[in-house]
Amino acid sequence: MEINNKIIKLLDDLREKTPLVHQITNNVTINDCANITLAIGGSPVMAEDIHEVREMVSLASSLVLNIGILTTGSIEAMIAAGKKANELNIPVILDPVGVGATSYRNESCKKIMSEVKLAVIRGNLSEIKSIYGIDTVTRGVDASESFVAGSNEFTKAKAMARNFADKFNTVVAITGEVDIITDGKTLYATSNGHKMMSRVTGTGCMCTAVIGCYLGAGDNNLIAALAGVVSMGIAGETAYERLDKKIEGSGTFRVKMIDAMYNLCDIEINKRSEINEE
Amino acid sequence: MEINNKIIKLLDDLREKTPLVHQITNNVTINDCANITLAIGGSPVMAEDIHEVREMVSLASSLVLNIGILTTGSIEAMIAAGKKANELNIPVILDPVGVGATSYRNESCKKIMSEVKLAVIRGNLSEIKSIYGIDTVTRGVDASESFVAGSNEFTKAKAMARNFADKFNTVVAITGEVDIITDGKTLYATSNGHKMMSRVTGTGCMCTAVIGCYLGAGDNNLIAALAGVVSMGIAGETAYERLDKKIEGSGTFRVKMIDAMYNLCDIEINKRSEINEE
Amino acid sequence: MEINNKIIKLLDDLREKTPLVHQITNNVTINDCANITLAIGGSPVMAEDIHEVREMVSLASSLVLNIGILTTGSIEAMIAAGKKANELNIPVILDPVGVGATSYRNESCKKIMSEVKLAVIRGNLSEIKSIYGIDTVTRGVDASESFVAGSNEFTKAKAMARNFADKFNTVVAITGEVDIITDGKTLYATSNGHKMMSRVTGTGCMCTAVIGCYLGAGDNNLIAALAGVVSMGIAGETAYERLDKKIEGSGTFRVKMIDAMYNLCDIEINKRSEINEE
Repeated sequence: MEINNKIIKLLDDLREKTPLVHQITNNVTINDCANITLAIGGSPVMAEDIHEVREMVSLASSLVLNIGILTTGSIEAMIAAGKKANELNIPVILDPVGVGATSYRNESCKKIMSEVKLAVIRGNLSEIKSIYGIDTVTRGVDASESFVAGSNEFTKAKAMARNFADKFNTVVAITGEVDIITDGKTLYATSNGHKMMSRVTGTGCMCTAVIGCYLGAGDNNLIAALAGVVSMGIAGETAYERLDKKIEGSGTFRVKMIDAMYNLCDIEINKRSEINEE
Repeated sequence: MEINNKIIKLLDDLREKTPLVHQITNNVTINDCANITLAIGGSPVMAEDIHEVREMVSLASSLVLNIGILTTGSIEAMIAAGKKANELNIPVILDPVGVGATSYRNESCKKIMSEVKLAVIRGNLSEIKSIYGIDTVTRGVDASESFVAGSNEFTKAKAMARNFADKFNTVVAITGEVDIITDGKTLYATSNGHKMMSRVTGTGCMCTAVIGCYLGAGDNNLIAALAGVVSMGIAGETAYERLDKKIEGSGTFRVKMIDAMYNLCDIEINKRSEINEE
Repeated sequence: MEINNKIIKLLDDLREKTPLVHQITNNVTINDCANITLAIGGSPVMAEDIHEVREMVSLASSLVLNIGILTTGSIEAMIAAGKKANELNIPVILDPVGVGATSYRNESCKKIMSEVKLAVIRGNLSEIKSIYGIDTVTRGVDASESFVAGSNEFTKAKAMARNFADKFNTVVAITGEVDIITDGKTLYATSNGHKMMSRVTGTGCMCTAVIGCYLGAGDNNLIAALAGVVSMGIAGETAYERLDKKIEGSGTFRVKMIDAMYNLCDIEINKRSEINEE
């Protein structure tokens, strides 16, 4: 399948280039984000102080902004790094964790989006709806809304994603049971992954970090977002298959996800990817 | 046993309700606390900025405060969140990590306790003695004093715990080789767990997080504290049993503890719980 | 081998004494540093607020400073803790993570080194060259330069390490494929470890933490640095050997490294250590 070949090519480039991925992220999942970046073949750097983010991002191939734990300083640093990245044509991805839950997150997210040009934005349905201005319920930082393929909600989400991507001239990735990735024109619906991923903190953040790695390896933002979502989904379902369900649980599952990302290869992608272009 | 049934009922309710547990905690074990919360069936949210903690805690079923790594901002945020929780009758648990080691910790802990009404306070013997005003030696953040069942020290600790709970109108949980959980009237002494738990950072913090989950699932603070301590102890001893001692150590032990919490069920609780009511 | 016996003796002392190791470190690997400290037999405490670091370090047997994620507050706290440690003759180790990448890191590092007397400094080749004032390329926080035994670069690195140690009256440890540990007079070249360690975040930070544990257990800084580097290398190569390469990767490797540190013993050290004195 042609689209698989594009993903495989980008994965090869990633491992060849080992892009430096500058991440300003939250303290809950910062270690997981660094380790998944190394697992797939990237090189993470997590600087977040305003005094050095501009200089650090200048060395990087891509920039990941994640608002999982906000502080006044971190927003300022994200915007400074983001602007510098824009100047240098370094792609920026935003993960608007928990947006919709508090006004502080909403405002911070708006501020970032108004000052930084984003290559990709990845969130769950509640988060993306919230940014888009549709009334929704965000319950903490976990997905509180979702949809299944073929549902009315799915059709609506696809239309919203396209409009969002058009309006902000970016790539939108909505992840959940089914995932939507679009640049406003082409739209991919993918369904890799396993629901156990929601029982480990940071699978969303890790997905964003992996997209960050792909962004740093090539120059097609849409394919990078698709590759990241599919890679993370494959890692999750591979980990689930290898679990001894009688005695193993979310602890081992998390370790095996990172193992699967480390071992991700063309064979796995060709065997497992579930991608529909619409 | 009747008490086991109460714990099992609360665990069922927890998994049915998936309570949102707002945690303001330390950066050493924040990821472990989020993952153990997800493992037992809760939903963690870790917001700590003063600008959003009041709004975030309003969405939550319980609030966990952990002073493992203090900063000026975090104490202020803890008190703001705690007061809001009190207003809304959302139960608050405090983990006074390392209190007794520095005057800053002592004062911060006192400040929180004077401004926020606590449903439960969980610490090791040194920490609880230190708060209670008994001269003690806190060595860093790890347990430096303990007792065994039947000892004179154990008798004294039980009396102190009852008085403490009475004085502050709260539930006190002292964890160690033997654990004491009391609301001042009823007192449970439990002895689940394994000493290897002290070789993994954050088993105390994780215990507090698990109590936070139970607090968010029901309305009996004493049973919630008991259920949390027993669940964590069972997870620890189950993990130890499943360890290949020749080649595995504290790394695998930690992963298997989270696995055991994920798989915790009525059968395990009935088989393993060691609870004495006094 | 006599040098092995010195390491084994220090490891025994470490496990007998369980030294309290105060660490002011970065949020990416803080949990790993605490867990590796516990795995080898030390007791970690991670306080970083300026209000309590002086008091906390007074309780400790050694102090670890790691600039992996800098903030204005953290540098100030590092210097305050370092000065107090110097007053009390508590050994201090510095890990200059990513120095050379930004001017902020360079200045912060210089500031610490000018105000705090260091027992040991551990970094990769780029970092040590950068501090020493040799033009180099630091790419984020990962090693960007290295050398192999017998190469011209290796000879130059040994000379630089000796001069550096002399000039600052400290022990210098340069880690990489081959490691150099010297106090300016005696120099050890070691070659334990496995290149897969570079695919897990924090193996450098963990090495520094382990040296911190050894520093807190005895009074020979050179042997402590050597023991830390060799112990971490042995843990890495043991973990690699126990990996099921078909399905396991960097996730399991990380867990097994901590397991191996937990199980490190005289037999392993005698069997595996690769140390040349020059």
